[in-house]
Order: sequence, then structure tokens, then C-alpha cells
Amino acid sequence: MSKTKNSKLRIIPLGGLEQIGMNITAFEYEDSIIVVDCGLAFPTDDMLGIDLVIPDISYLLENEEKVKGLFITHGHEDHIGAIPYVLKQLNMPIYATKLTMGIIEHKLQEHNLSSQVRRKVVKYGQSINLGPFRVEFVKTNHSIQDAAAFAIYTPAGVVFHTGDFKVDYTPVFGDAIDLQRIAEIGKKGVLAVMCDSTNAERPGFTQSERTVGKQFDNIFAENQSTRIIIATFASNVDRVQQIINSAYKYGRKVVVEGRSMVNIISTASELGYLNIPENTLISIDELKNYPDEKTVLITTGSQGESMAALSRMANGMHRKVSIQPNDTIIFSSHPIPGNEKAVSNIMNELYRKGANVIFQDVHVSGHACKEEIKLIYTLLHPKYCIPVHGEYKHLKAQEALVKELGYTSDDIYILSSGDVLELDDESAKVAGHVHTGAIMVDGLGVGDVGNIVLRDRQHLAEDGIIIVVMTLQAGTGLVLAGPDIVSRGFVYVRGSEDLMDSARAVLNDTMEDLMSDGVSDWGRIKSEIKSSLSDFVWKETQRRPMIMPILMEV
Amino acid sequence: MSKTKNSKLRIIPLGGLEQIGMNITAFEYEDSIIVVDCGLAFPTDDMLGIDLVIPDISYLLENEEKVKGLFITHGHEDHIGAIPYVLKQLNMPIYATKLTMGIIEHKLQEHNLSSQVRRKVVKYGQSINLGPFRVEFVKTNHSIQDAAAFAIYTPAGVVFHTGDFKVDYTPVFGDAIDLQRIAEIGKKGVLAVMCDSTNAERPGFTQSERTVGKQFDNIFAENQSTRIIIATFASNVDRVQQIINSAYKYGRKVVVEGRSMVNIISTASELGYLNIPENTLISIDELKNYPDEKTVLITTGSQGESMAALSRMANGMHRKVSIQPNDTIIFSSHPIPGNEKAVSNIMNELYRKGANVIFQDVHVSGHACKEEIKLIYTLLHPKYCIPVHGEYKHLKAQEALVKELGYTSDDIYILSSGDVLELDDESAKVAGHVHTGAIMVDGLGVGDVGNIVLRDRQHLAEDGIIIVVMTLQAGTGLVLAGPDIVSRGFVYVRGSEDLMDSARAVLNDTMEDLMSDGVSDWGRIKSEIKSSLSDFVWKETQRRPMIMPILMEV
Repeated sequence: MSKTKNSKLRIIPLGGLEQIGMNITAFEYEDSIIVVDCGLAFPTDDMLGIDLVIPDISYLLENEEKVKGLFITHGHEDHIGAIPYVLKQLNMPIYATKLTMGIIEHKLQEHNLSSQVRRKVVKYGQSINLGPFRVEFVKTNHSIQDAAAFAIYTPAGVVFHTGDFKVDYTPVFGDAIDLQRIAEIGKKGVLAVMCDSTNAERPGFTQSERTVGKQFDNIFAENQSTRIIIATFASNVDRVQQIINSAYKYGRKVVVEGRSMVNIISTASELGYLNIPENTLISIDELKNYPDEKTVLITTGSQGESMAALSRMANGMHRKVSIQPNDTIIFSSHPIPGNEKAVSNIMNELYRKGANVIFQDVHVSGHACKEEIKLIYTLLHPKYCIPVHGEYKHLKAQEALVKELGYTSDDIYILSSGDVLELDDESAKVAGHVHTGAIMVDGLGVGDVGNIVLRDRQHLAEDGIIIVVMTLQAGTGLVLAGPDIVSRGFVYVRGSEDLMDSARAVLNDTMEDLMSDGVSDWGRIKSEIKSSLSDFVWKETQRRPMIMPILMEV
Repeated sequence: MSKTKNSKLRIIPLGGLEQIGMNITAFEYEDSIIVVDCGLAFPTDDMLGIDLVIPDISYLLENEEKVKGLFITHGHEDHIGAIPYVLKQLNMPIYATKLTMGIIEHKLQEHNLSSQVRRKVVKYGQSINLGPFRVEFVKTNHSIQDAAAFAIYTPAGVVFHTGDFKVDYTPVFGDAIDLQRIAEIGKKGVLAVMCDSTNAERPGFTQSERTVGKQFDNIFAENQSTRIIIATFASNVDRVQQIINSAYKYGRKVVVEGRSMVNIISTASELGYLNIPENTLISIDELKNYPDEKTVLITTGSQGESMAALSRMANGMHRKVSIQPNDTIIFSSHPIPGNEKAVSNIMNELYRKGANVIFQDVHVSGHACKEEIKLIYTLLHPKYCIPVHGEYKHLKAQEALVKELGYTSDDIYILSSGDVLELDDESAKVAGHVHTGAIMVDGLGVGDVGNIVLRDRQHLAEDGIIIVVMTLQAGTGLVLAGPDIVSRGFVYVRGSEDLMDSARAVLNDTMEDLMSDGVSDWGRIKSEIKSSLSDFVWKETQRRPMIMPILMEV
């Protein structure tokens, strides 16, 4: 990127605006950069063995001296999950609201980073000045408390970043989204809006979180003679609050189960975001002291995650809770795309154990639907529209939506990861592209698993491996031992013995030919072994296992 | 199973009634067995490298002399896909309606079985007598033409098997489901109904196939200036008919793309199930002779299958069709559970290429919703209810539904694969269990991939493999060459060189210890290599690759 100064603002998505996960965006003005969010992504199906994916921040590292700070909209993993990994490479102060910071602090502790990272808790309405930037925190609503939108004031104009949001007029905790302030900001003139697109395909208005609470009351009223188990998102503290409210009303004790759930609930109640009546929460070991119909379990695993508490209960692998006939089990969640099958499998398992499973009308989304998106654009009335947060089809749906409001293609920018959008009151254009990427984390390794490794894993997963070992005599190249053939993930059962005998015969022929032709080059020998064995195996089985010749010399 | 005669009918699901796929059920009365359907299942996510899954028919093979014939309800893969594999083990005559038989014949030809298998095409209303059984074919509606329900008359009573069905009062081709005959059968008394549960969770009535045709007309009217590409299920001939109707009305030529689609359409039109006006169908090579807005492509790939025509178009891998901005692309389908993410990915790809994607209100289900299921049970008024076809939760939903009709738990049987339900007018009970199972097909291999192979593939996919090779001196056990270390699917990029050097040092230490202890047993040596290397790798990387020591002797 050119380092010459100009008076335009640059907006650079570094993680890929268009995918859910890895939300991280740089805002650059002259010699200053601020960063908004720092999320991770979960691996896609083809990333075998990968635990999580974090953004490649090369661009920030190249411009390290410019980077002033990191602003976090809310405490979901796709907005905060990469913080420890990124801060190890590039230390910068973090700005966030109280609960969001509480969750971040927990992460920093796990990575032994708490003492090294400067942090500032920011209140709604408060602004942070960093170089030419002023960032105002604006109250919004979302499926986690303390979510903020940012009004980013720059010499080139004001950019309003909604973060993930919905409009909840009757939130469970705290205030509704600050529509008055948003209108005021809009009145003064906004250069661009970056707006959550997740639900841009859905008509109407997302329902209030409070409607779920009413539903819990109904279910508790109708199921007074059974245990109740409720699976939901660990971070949805308002949901947990409403379960506790219903439990208290119906005289049930509450157990919280699942590591991430326990963590967030303890953070939230320490910080005053959760109001638990005395003697309501009990430990899982105390469960046995109460009759089933006087207990509620709140648990992780609503997405069918195989290691989460609910999966372990469903599969009889949980050490302390087993599903009983007549348990009432509520999925207070909706499957995230890709998890549908896993969720279905768990429901089937629960039904098989005799449980009564409830999964309709016990969840609301945390994201704005069409009418809410139109409301925000109408209040802010920006010059440019930048749909963010969602799959590409969702960004396109928001584009179609703002066109209904009168915007034209020239006003709307759908950015790809690394695109540099230069803008001011005069004009906007994608003026360049910087390097970005996804770095895979596998165990302790960050970025050491690359595409070759993944391709190999894919190949191994598909058809397994056949290893051919031979010991050759130094100098003569005479075969002293082998070829020995060993396989893993390849046929075992029927006729495979014969197959391996014949394979050995094929290889012996190949070696004889090579010897009589006087071939001693190992590269040539290996490639001949590979191709003759591969042809033979394909002909016999129509499979293409990985074939790996290993030669040794004595 | 006891071979003593009794006068009860036995119903034995052999493929797993509760999973979609592998529909195959044995009806046994004294010395006779008839089989209904013979389907395959597609592999689940944990069946790495597996192409398809077929039922284990040990029970039929053990009772080979009893087996009289195979009755097929309709031509979907989960009802006919295992026929070639099963008939190679156990030849029996096949009974099916005309189109269903046409599709089966195609399969038999591919497996060189056509000359060996007796087949009889059966008309609706016609009955087949086999031993004590009489099987009457009853007209139903489904998402493929020529679907049949079976009234199975036995000395123990009449069992009505719906097959997969819906009630379509205005079908595109042929007649509505024969409700009059169903009522007549019901009036005479029915012992048990086995009823499709797929949509038992959905309220109301499934819409007529014809509503989709109206929707096509609307879309064709609104998009007269662009090419139209429609992805749908290959076997839904009525859907294809309606696309052809709209194309003809709007003066467009039709191209059919995708192997399975071409096959079924040619079978259906040969047999008179599809009415294609002259000069409407063109080949894909003729496409270039027509302006885009005068063409329609009907293609496979509506489920996001990576090798299907639509995926290849979306990814720029199709040799003859590339997606252009403004193409109108219709998904006339709904994702089958588990395929949601793949379908979404393709939609995103299509949007990225500038296409306009339509996926709402252009599909109807082929399965009965709650009101239709209640209608069938009410017309047939059986003594026993046996929910079939669906995930377990769907079977439970049908159970809840028939309870609304007044049935009690004692009247309802949800069977697992292998359960032997013995019934007559007096009583019904699960009286035993026979061996069943799923046989995996991978390439040419049927059943040779077992759980060990799958577990190995899973392990390889997760963390890769490290191979350790050494050549030892015969007699002394002295290490002549190695240990050499090779890995695949394991770390490559950063620091992995050092890691392998250190690993070699660890192994050298291990071998020295073993030598000085005088250990020469290969089993012991291998296990020591495994455990020392495994510990080292876990400590350094927190990964657990498969470790495979190979020793050779010269």
C-alpha cells in the first residue's frame, strides 16, 4: 500500500466481512489505524482436524506504528475469539463495555496475557479519542448483553458501525437500543453505515427476547411433574435470566452445566448482569437431594456439539446426568447453518430415551430483520451503505433492501476481505487490496497446518494409505529386504490378504524391471513403485489410497 | 428365529425403519416371506470415503427358500438403490409399476443383471398372489410418478403400507391418490397401517405439485430477458414437465444437464410419462445457437452435491456452461437435512457471479403432512398403527398424531431395525429380534470397509500419520539404518524441521535404552517407539497423529 498521506478514510476488512466469523476491520486515516472487533471462525468441513481459524493480520503488523487500539462491539466468539492470538503478535489497548470486557479478561487470563494488555471499560454515550478518530459507544440490543454500535468520527466523515444488533423495545436487562441518539447522529450527517446483514432475507421485525420468557412460563406451567432441561447458547445471559425467573416462580432449583455456560454465568453475575435469587442455584452434585420436578438444568450443547453437556447426556456419556423417560427437554436455540443434522441426531437420541422434546417457539434471533435494517438506515441516512456480517447472499439481500430505500448500486459497497475502500464526502471507491487470510489453529500450532497438510488429510480420510518399505544395499541398489506393504484406512476384511499378496508380486516385478534396466535413482524407483501399485489397486478396488514408498539403505 | 409354524404375521424391518434410506421390510407368514422395497442409504459424515450403504440381508439369506418376491413402492434411491447389490446375493422376482420398473431396469443393466432377474409390471388395482400373500397395488401421489401403496392381504389380516405418499387432488400427471379404494379397504377391516412419517411434524396439508407450475409461470413472465437455470431433483418428472410447459409457453428451448437427470427423463419420456413438445428439447451443444433469454437449463445439483452440474457451473468447472451476471437461477427443491450448508455455499457462489437466485416458494414436498396422515388413518381405521419412514422424532410425531385420533400406546408400534413384530387380530407384540446391519460400499468393495478402517480414516483425517522406519540386523537387532521419520497430514510449515530432528533424537534414545536392556522383541520395540514418540509429539504440539513403526531385517 502506498504510504503517501491523503485525506480519505480507508476501511479495510481483514477477516472477511462476508463470512460469519473472523470479524475484524481496520479503519485507517493518515498515520492512524483503529481496529474494530477481532473474531475467530470455526473450521469448515474441509478443514480436517482444525480447531479454529484466526485472521492473518500481516497488514496491521506492517503498519504496527500506526495502530492505536482495538474496539470490540460485543462478546461473541466471532468478534473476540482471536484476541489472544492477535495480541500476542501486536499489542494494542482494548476498548469495550463492561460485560464484553469481563469475557475478554477471562480469555486473556487463559493465555496469560492479562498483565500485558491495556484495557478500558467504556460506557454507552462515552467517546474514546485516538489520533484523528473519535469512537462513540452507542447502546444496541443483541443476543448478548452490553452490545455496542460505534459512531466513528473522522476528518473524512462519520462511519456508523452497527455491530451485531436487533431492535428490542422491551429488553430483559437494561435499555432498548438508543434510537434517539442514532437519529441525532443521523441528523448531523453520516458518511457511511456498516450494517449487520445476518437476517436481511427475513421480512418483518425480530421478536423481543422477552417473548421467550413468556414461553418458558407456559412450558413450566404445563410440565410441573417432570424435570426440565434447557439447552441454549452459553453467552445468552438474558435467556438464562428468564429461565431462572421461571424456575423461581415455579419453585425449582437451577443447575448450570457445561464449561462455557458456567464461565459466562459467573462473569455475568459477578458484574451484575444476572440476578439470581438466593438458594436458587445449586451444584450438579446437589441434584440428587431434590425431586426431579423441582429442578431445572441449563446446559450447553444446543448446536449438537458432540462434546457439549447435552450430547453427553443424550449419549449416556455424562457422568452425573442421564436422560430419563418424561424429561422435558427444551432447545432454546435455532441450529446455526451446518449444524442442522447434528441437532437432529441429538433430538432423535433424546426421543429414543423417552424424553419430551420442545424446540418450536422457544427462541428468538439476536439479529435485525428487514424492517429493523430499514429503520436504522432511515434514521442514519448515510451517503454510503456497506452491508456487513453475513454470508454473501445476506449481504446481497441487504443491498436489495437499501435499494428499496432509494440507494443505487453506486452508493453500496460489498467488500471482500482485504479490499481497501477509500471514501470521503466526495467519493468512495475500492482503491486497492491488502494481503489477508485465514490462519488455522490445530492444537498448539498456529498457522503450521497449511493446504498441503489439509489435502493429505482429505486424501487419507477418503481412501487411507498404503506404505511400501524396502531396504536396498548401498552401492549396488540390490533389494535386501521388502518390499513390505502396510496399510491403514484401506481395505481390511474380505480378500484383502490376497490383494496384498498380489500387490507384493506387482512390486517385485516392478523392481526386477528397474534392476534389469540398471535404474538406481531413488526418485525414479519411488515414482515407479507409486504408479505400478496405484494402477493395480485402482483396477482391483477402484480406490486411490495414498501410496508412500520409503527406501532405506544399509 | 424359531422355525415353528404359527398363524401370526411377522413384520420385520431389515434396513432400519427409523432412518431415511435403506427402506426394506420383510413380511413373513408361515413358510413364506415377501419383501417390500430395497433401498440404500447415503453415508453419514463419519463414514469417511464411503460411497453408499446397503442393508445386511442375512435374515433373508438364512430363509432363502421362503422368499417369494420383492415389491417396490416407488423409484427413489432409498427404496430401490440396493436392488442390484441384494439381488446378486438373493435372486427374487420384482413387482412394480411401469415407471418404477423402468428406473429399476436401468440399474439392473448397469450391473449386468437384467437377463437374470424376473420382473413383472403391475397396474394400480391389480393384485399379485404369492403363497399366503396377496398384494394389491393402490394408486398414491408422491414426488415421483407411479408411486404405489400396498394392501397386503394375509391370513392374519390386512396390512396397508402407504409407501411414501402425499394427497394431491390435482396431480400434474395421472390420477389423484385412490381414496375411494383406500376407504373401501378400510371398510372391510385393516389389521395394521404402516404410514410415512416424514412430515408428521408439519401441520396442515402438503400443497399440490401443480402450485409449483403456476410459480414457474410467474417467474418466467418476470424474467423474460435473462437465461433461466433450474435445479431440481432428477427423479421429479412432474416438476420437469412443468418447467417444460412454462418454457414452451414462453418460447424457450430446454436443455437437460446432469447424468441422473438425463437418465430419468429419457426413461420417463420413453414410457410416456413426460410430454415434450417437438423442437423444445435441445442438446447442450446447441445452446450457443440461441440467445440466452430463449433458453432454460434444467440441472442436477439442487442439494449442493459437489460433483453435480450446478456445482460445477457455480465453481467455473463446467465445460459447457458458465454462470453469467443476470442469470436467473431457481432452486426448485428444499435442502435435505444435512445439506443446508452445501446448498448455501453454492447460492453464495452464484450470487458472487452476479446471478439472481430464487429459492422461496418454488418447491412442494412429496410427503403427507398431519392432516393427510389423519385422513389415511381415518379412512383405513386399522387395529394397529406402525409409523414408518422418517427420523425417530418423525415417528414419534406420528405416534402423537394417531393418539389424537384415539389410539393408545398399546396400539402403536415404533419398530427398530431387526425387530420382529408378530401380530394378528388378537394381539401384537415384538416377539424377537433378527440380525440386521448396514454394509458400506466403497468403490468396488461391498462390506470390506469395516469399523477399524473407518476409525483409522478418522484418526488420519484428524491429525495425520507419522511413519518411523528402521532396518535392523538379523540376529543382533542392531540398528543398521534409520530411524527415518516421514509424515503425511501432519505439521509442515513452521518449525516442523526442528520437530522432526528432535523426534529422531528421542527415538535414538529410546532405541539405545532398548538395546542396552537387551530387548529384541519387535512387538516391544514397536510399542516403545510408539509411546515415546507419541508423548513427545503431544507435549510439543498437543496433537495425536497416528504413529506407525515399521521394522525391517537384513
